Amino acid sequence: MRKTEICFSPELIHLYDLQEKIVVVVDIFRATSTMAAALANGVTEIKTFENLESCKEMATNGYLIAGERNGKTAPGFQLGNSPVAYLQNKYAGQKLAMTTTNGTLAISKSKGASEVLIGSFPNLSATVNYLQSQKKDVLIHCAGWKGMFNLEDSLYAGALTKCLESTHIASDDGSLAMKALYEKEGHDLKGFLSQASHAKRLQNHNIDSDIDFCLTLDLFSIIGKVENGVLKSQEI
Amino acid sequence: MRKTEICFSPELIHLYDLQEKIVVVVDIFRATSTMAAALANGVTEIKTFENLESCKEMATNGYLIAGERNGKTAPGFQLGNSPVAYLQNKYAGQKLAMTTTNGTLAISKSKGASEVLIGSFPNLSATVNYLQSQKKDVLIHCAGWKGMFNLEDSLYAGALTKCLESTHIASDDGSLAMKALYEKEGHDLKGFLSQASHAKRLQNHNIDSDIDFCLTLDLFSIIGKVENGVLKSQEI
Repeated sequence: MRKTEICFSPELIHLYDLQEKIVVVVDIFRATSTMAAALANGVTEIKTFENLESCKEMATNGYLIAGERNGKTAPGFQLGNSPVAYLQNKYAGQKLAMTTTNGTLAISKSKGASEVLIGSFPNLSATVNYLQSQKKDVLIHCAGWKGMFNLEDSLYAGALTKCLESTHIASDDGSLAMKALYEKEGHDLKGFLSQASHAKRLQNHNIDSDIDFCLTLDLFSIIGKVENGVLKSQEI
Repeated sequence: MRKTEICFSPELIHLYDLQEKIVVVVDIFRATSTMAAALANGVTEIKTFENLESCKEMATNGYLIAGERNGKTAPGFQLGNSPVAYLQNKYAGQKLAMTTTNGTLAISKSKGASEVLIGSFPNLSATVNYLQSQKKDVLIHCAGWKGMFNLEDSLYAGALTKCLESTHIASDDGSLAMKALYEKEGHDLKGFLSQASHAKRLQNHNIDSDIDFCLTLDLFSIIGKVENGVLKSQEI
């Protein structure tokens, strides 16, 4: 059997050996859900940035620019971090530069892995199918919230661990815990997550449609994979 | 309502505000279980050390010395990290100096809190009763394993959160997750934890009696509290 592990925070990722593993970066509310939506709706590539200024400069290179801090669109950016903004192929054919509070940092801290994917509920089954077709162990890297454990990323990690169990064993304590938690709470993700700190934060911003989108399973049949520093889609 | 939060690793504790909170340090396998056993069996005080040498020097001051690294008694120490060694008042009236792989570090990193307690299943109800008699919020600080999330500490944190729910609300994502996990798996702690990495590590050392002890509820009616750098018991 191959293995699944979960790292709950970018502040702990230095404790893990990334070599020869496929790292799945997860920031359910909302960065990696937004990336999946953008790629599935025809955005050709996404470059991610840790800081706002380098991201903003990409506008001069013809990129759409998306910037979010603390749940809001950063000043001077065309787009924030809402997945529904990309639906109906609104930006098809364009290139996107993106920076968010947590998700883009987790991607940059995943360097050194054999492959880096982005994970979301809307492309969960596609990601499962791809991972099962590969021969490598999987490390799920939760973006968390400013270094802390967060419920939605962890539950996705539990869902992915559960879906992979026929080929990948839950090999660390984090994956055992989250697989069990998903078995208990996965039938009502929205109900359970409505208690979570970040869902409350988002509700304050009146983006309930984003939350619904981010918790919808299997809308898309693509995976998102980082190649040479650029995130692109691959049809599964 | 007062609040409960969980920090899953000493490597994340800098993200939390400890002021005005009671921090409960947890290292179920086995440091804090051993401390509870020692105090309940008449050990008068415990000084904790991060490194082996400073701990060993306490022998010249008349202290019993206990040292553990990677699950084994460290060379030159009288005692390792087994709770059952202290039963039947074997070391009653003596003072103990102790260093372990994870637990003693978590205690030293909890400085700045209003109070620091040690938590274990054998004194769970006593700790609950004490916390409910106080007016402060609670932060449960899991020692983890070399910085990583671990299942037994996290499940204890879920048990404590569950037992406090009439007075303290689960206020962060960690406490919500672990309360739900304890509700699912708490009826068979040993069965669930037998999958956990550290339990496997301990089974390799043939200390099944330690594991049984560490998972037994409410053997003792004392709490363990750090005061002026020294851990002492208080009858509840």
